[in-house]
Amino acid sequence: MEIEVKFRVRLEEIRPKIEGLGAILSHEEVQEDVYFSLPSPQLLRVRRVENLGRAFLTYKLIKDPGRNEEFDELEVEVSDFDTTVEILKRLGFEEDVIVRKHRYVYRLGDVTFELSRVENLGDFLDIEVIAEDIGGAKRRIWDVAKKLGLSEKDVEPRLYQELIREKMGN
Amino acid sequence: MEIEVKFRVRLEEIRPKIEGLGAILSHEEVQEDVYFSLPSPQLLRVRRVENLGRAFLTYKLIKDPGRNEEFDELEVEVSDFDTTVEILKRLGFEEDVIVRKHRYVYRLGDVTFELSRVENLGDFLDIEVIAEDIGGAKRRIWDVAKKLGLSEKDVEPRLYQELIREKMGN
Repeated sequence: MEIEVKFRVRLEEIRPKIEGLGAILSHEEVQEDVYFSLPSPQLLRVRRVENLGRAFLTYKLIKDPGRNEEFDELEVEVSDFDTTVEILKRLGFEEDVIVRKHRYVYRLGDVTFELSRVENLGDFLDIEVIAEDIGGAKRRIWDVAKKLGLSEKDVEPRLYQELIREKMGN
Repeated sequence: MEIEVKFRVRLEEIRPKIEGLGAILSHEEVQEDVYFSLPSPQLLRVRRVENLGRAFLTYKLIKDPGRNEEFDELEVEVSDFDTTVEILKRLGFEEDVIVRKHRYVYRLGDVTFELSRVENLGDFLDIEVIAEDIGGAKRRIWDVAKKLGLSEKDVEPRLYQELIREKMGN
């Protein structure tokens, strides 16, 4: 199970705090995510990681719709982004939105920090733990979140897909 | 466009004839193909190539349904067979049949010979050319087919998926 909490942040302010915890920069990703229209609580995404020349097909089942912190995730790497998107279109899935971001991935033990500047949306920090023990994972996440000065009011419960869809509706 | 003609053969008899043409053995594949239920003329398949540790997601549109020699094919390599099958099931696709074969792949210029021993079905030779010129491709295929002693009566127009489905119905 993928457990994560998304916070609204300012990238320049939070980045030194993450490094101050002792987290190590794993890598950077320039991501282009194509989301397809799928009934809630399911997500279907093809991700192009432009700077690494890699692509991924991902299906997520949201276990706590609305709060969006618990995900049952299935993911495979695919050899070609465009062909994968085309296969899904041929299978009848419709492109919903595209999310583009520049992401810095930090790790500290079993905690992953995904610090992202999202095109047209702003800066976000996803703090993630992969675990079966949901309660324990959330305690780990909030433990480090508080050390970064983050609180419940900084939480963004909406998915990137929803945020971009709302933005486009404006 | 993928142009191919499938013939019923005896593997031991045809193999020296293919090699006699000067075709070179490219590689062998132990394949497990999962086909999903999709309305004709579409095919959706996940292939595990067991001996090479590789897997592929393939969508085909049959351009000449019934004859099944002309295919518009989209294919990507995927990092994990089981996860890809599971993603498709989660997306609502139902597993139709599984086809298992041991395949010898030979090449002679732009012609590919796929010589297969298919579990529960027998031996088959698919002669394939990738080309936009369908007429030219078919002439190339029949040119080598005749040299192998094959004729129209040896053609098997049914797809492996159909053959296995019929077999299972018995």
